[in-house]
Amino acid sequence: MLVHGKHYRTVWWEDSQVRMIDQQKLPHEFSIVSFSEYEDVALAIKDMVVRGAGAIGATGGFGVALAAQNAPDHGFWEKMMRSAEVLRKTRPTAQNLFFAIDRVMGLIEEHSDEPRLARRVALVEAQRIADEDAAMCRVIGEHGAALIKDGMRINTHCNAGWLAFVDNGSALSPVYEAKRQGKDIFVWVDETRPRCQGKLTAWELAHEGVSHAIIADNAAGHYMRQGEIDMVIVGADRIAANGDVANKIGTYSSAVVAKENGIPFYVAAPLSTFDLGCKSGSEIPIEERCDDEVLYAAGTDEKGALSRIRIAALPTKARNPAFDVTPARYITGIITPKGIVTADQKSIASLFK
Amino acid sequence: MLVHGKHYRTVWWEDSQVRMIDQQKLPHEFSIVSFSEYEDVALAIKDMVVRGAGAIGATGGFGVALAAQNAPDHGFWEKMMRSAEVLRKTRPTAQNLFFAIDRVMGLIEEHSDEPRLARRVALVEAQRIADEDAAMCRVIGEHGAALIKDGMRINTHCNAGWLAFVDNGSALSPVYEAKRQGKDIFVWVDETRPRCQGKLTAWELAHEGVSHAIIADNAAGHYMRQGEIDMVIVGADRIAANGDVANKIGTYSSAVVAKENGIPFYVAAPLSTFDLGCKSGSEIPIEERCDDEVLYAAGTDEKGALSRIRIAALPTKARNPAFDVTPARYITGIITPKGIVTADQKSIASLFK
Repeated sequence: MLVHGKHYRTVWWEDSQVRMIDQQKLPHEFSIVSFSEYEDVALAIKDMVVRGAGAIGATGGFGVALAAQNAPDHGFWEKMMRSAEVLRKTRPTAQNLFFAIDRVMGLIEEHSDEPRLARRVALVEAQRIADEDAAMCRVIGEHGAALIKDGMRINTHCNAGWLAFVDNGSALSPVYEAKRQGKDIFVWVDETRPRCQGKLTAWELAHEGVSHAIIADNAAGHYMRQGEIDMVIVGADRIAANGDVANKIGTYSSAVVAKENGIPFYVAAPLSTFDLGCKSGSEIPIEERCDDEVLYAAGTDEKGALSRIRIAALPTKARNPAFDVTPARYITGIITPKGIVTADQKSIASLFK
Repeated sequence: MLVHGKHYRTVWWEDSQVRMIDQQKLPHEFSIVSFSEYEDVALAIKDMVVRGAGAIGATGGFGVALAAQNAPDHGFWEKMMRSAEVLRKTRPTAQNLFFAIDRVMGLIEEHSDEPRLARRVALVEAQRIADEDAAMCRVIGEHGAALIKDGMRINTHCNAGWLAFVDNGSALSPVYEAKRQGKDIFVWVDETRPRCQGKLTAWELAHEGVSHAIIADNAAGHYMRQGEIDMVIVGADRIAANGDVANKIGTYSSAVVAKENGIPFYVAAPLSTFDLGCKSGSEIPIEERCDDEVLYAAGTDEKGALSRIRIAALPTKARNPAFDVTPARYITGIITPKGIVTADQKSIASLFK
């Protein structure tokens, strides 16, 4: 995507480093961070310098490649096993992370007795994963745009735009494609507490010239009932074999209220988000993050400096599940690079044939 | 309620002034503000120095009494009409405000040719409204506590505690009464963006020794589906003749998701919240507040000073409806000072016979 006239991806490999847009500072500051050690890449995933299913997937792949560059020939495979474990343990919910780490590690294992070759194939594979992510998201946009009619008002939750992937995004990709097709679209952006990824979505939409308004998560249901939302499109962090979807906390409520109001509710995701090893959503681990995310809010102070404030008084405690599971029955369809499928076992299995 | 060992009401009359707890500064600072001019009282309602259906009702009553104290004999009634208009125009949704202003103005009108008497009866009536609010909320607690079993986990939205009324509260009054009865209760507190009145609820619960956790509004549905919420109790800003309820934005979604999960959803309100002149919720005006409430968050900085930060980047716009309407069919029952009634025309009419 274009930022200040230059094309960027969310994460990429350059000069033997993993580079990424610092999403902790967005939308207030646009800056790039570079990492030379895989441990720092793992920390960047954990602390959400990079976030979003596809983006942390690609980062995981590059992280393994980086670990391979730095691992000595002696004890190469053991070292790689440990590195992959550190990268896997950063965040538990998004399937894309495990998908990418497993793919790169699979090739490294094949060539583990030839570290020099293993390093090369690791980087090629990590780059391929990133390229595929960007390309697949573009195709998701083409399929999804067919659902969007001129004048539609679309609601989205969290950020499943290009910042959440390597490029193009999942839920926002159909919006961008529809916009390129000349359709007039308005997007209702849930702010998505506690981390307010809606501000990233608003920032993307502003750059793409898409009309939008940010709303408190509480207001989405009101606008659904008022007939001001024609469709909901969200991303996914993991999709089980039966079509249950783990996505950002709040997605479940949004889907229930959309169904109650007869509003189509779509999930957009590349194939790397599906986990056929999970029979249903109840098997998907739900990350609980630090309660500070709820007790504090982050943004900029009156001088424009990055800052955070405490919302609740001491000694209040908070609970902070980062994701929830939306049962398949609330989902109108899943927009994939292979087309739009219904959220059921058979349709999902057919994607992998 | 007791704060630092002293009994407080939310708003009261003292030394010919209207005094109130400054809720803009809570939960971070506990301070009292005093007003000698009704225009300042109106501004305090508008800016939410005082907020909550019952509290702004009582404040409106005292505001009219204050205007009467200050109005000259010459042109007394005309002056009072103008003052009441200013107080009425502060916030459009909560019925209690109009109920209180109308009651005090009705008596002033009766005695408008005797300003001295009118001033006296105005103050007596305003005080009576405040006393009734506190007493009726206490009775709501007694009726509501019968619904609460030992060990129950209750979810509430916004603040319908004693800060939202003159004392005791509506939705939280049953919780306080159940606690006094020795029942073990846990409260899931929705933070209630954009103004995060959940932090007021958490502050109240901490003072009352009730176990609780604050959650992002997005998480309530997740915990409902997980079976971790046994009952929802919320307050109301206006209840139409057919049982539709206007309350803080997000209440509608909460009610829909509660129903979907078979969780009882109760509304607690004094009779002053009912507006039999509104046939249904569609006739209730919904206040839209400044979009800064969504684009910013308020709290304390690292030094503990009151502060606010901008969440979203410029030039993002926001929409900010302060209330929504929950249709009667989602409401299990309405807890009133006259007992618990179903949310339908006949049951509601019976409350006023």
